[in-house]
Amino acid sequence: MAIETSPAISALIKALEELPGYGPRSAQRAAFFLLAPERREKLEALKKALEGTAAIRRCRLCRTWCEAELCPVCADEKRDRSLICVVESVQDQMALDASLSWPGLYFVLSGRLSPLDNAGPAEIGLPQLLERIELGLCEDGLREVVVATSYTPEGDATAYYLMGAVKKRWPDLRITRLSRGLPSGLEIEYTDLASIAGAVEDRRRL
Amino acid sequence: MAIETSPAISALIKALEELPGYGPRSAQRAAFFLLAPERREKLEALKKALEGTAAIRRCRLCRTWCEAELCPVCADEKRDRSLICVVESVQDQMALDASLSWPGLYFVLSGRLSPLDNAGPAEIGLPQLLERIELGLCEDGLREVVVATSYTPEGDATAYYLMGAVKKRWPDLRITRLSRGLPSGLEIEYTDLASIAGAVEDRRRL
Repeated sequence: MAIETSPAISALIKALEELPGYGPRSAQRAAFFLLAPERREKLEALKKALEGTAAIRRCRLCRTWCEAELCPVCADEKRDRSLICVVESVQDQMALDASLSWPGLYFVLSGRLSPLDNAGPAEIGLPQLLERIELGLCEDGLREVVVATSYTPEGDATAYYLMGAVKKRWPDLRITRLSRGLPSGLEIEYTDLASIAGAVEDRRRL
Repeated sequence: MAIETSPAISALIKALEELPGYGPRSAQRAAFFLLAPERREKLEALKKALEGTAAIRRCRLCRTWCEAELCPVCADEKRDRSLICVVESVQDQMALDASLSWPGLYFVLSGRLSPLDNAGPAEIGLPQLLERIELGLCEDGLREVVVATSYTPEGDATAYYLMGAVKKRWPDLRITRLSRGLPSGLEIEYTDLASIAGAVEDRRRL
């Protein structure tokens, strides 16, 4: 660029460039968007929101993001504490809970097993999961652990690894995985072959 | 959402949602992206960059964003002070200057005339432009004002309005507009018809 932009503007563009989905041009656009006088309150809101993240920490039990020692789900007495659903991320947890189908608690891993990205069992939080299961068995009469990883190669590997680790320590604990099958609201004609194959294999009695 | 997300996270998602190109889902993705422990330094960088914007103000002469009283271009003694190029935005100014073709100074409007958006002559900064021209005539022997608005209906309207206002006060001041024509590096076959028509009308002698 021929004009040296002010260091403050360059810093803003560079910082915005790091956001997912943003590149140099969209970051520049966003920076000037925020700098326009009529949008200063948006800039202030973003600034304040980022400052507010200092209060965010992990729930002691399920490791989701929250602002107290326990997240609202783990603190909720109406939840069935004998069921724990293991998810890969807070986003997955939110999607699952939005389906209103899960009555129990959660445990949030830090992603999935992915040796190429150096994400081994310790990195994704397996030790914490085992501790959590131990605690659940002692205090809440834990009955079932559901592994809610996706049906992708990494999701499969993660599910089998977790299952192995849990089965080894507690051979009698019920451990399940979300079922494969046809997605709702989509014609079979347009469903991908792997989902159809999964639905055939896991077909259920009526 | 069934899970009440923490207020700090909701605030962050809401603030990110305001960024151009972001919607609810991408803002959520960006929020969790920034919250991941390994990306905390990106969050800090963005926070610091937003705080740094407090130092950004408008150049006294050309009204671009800068951190001093005069921007680097207006302070540059090698620039031809007798030429002023009027642009719609700082982004346009940066694009023009990156082309290394403009030896003079700039004046940055706040957008273009757009009655539907309540952007009249006062809103886009016409009074300040006239003051700037006056100053240029008194102090720098201003010779030419180039209107660098785009060849769109609003750009045309803005150019003609500015031209009228300037001609009325200083009938002898040379006022020009960037030429229309074929874009570089594009086959005529693929050029839009309005650009071809412009290139025919404004054809130049060889």
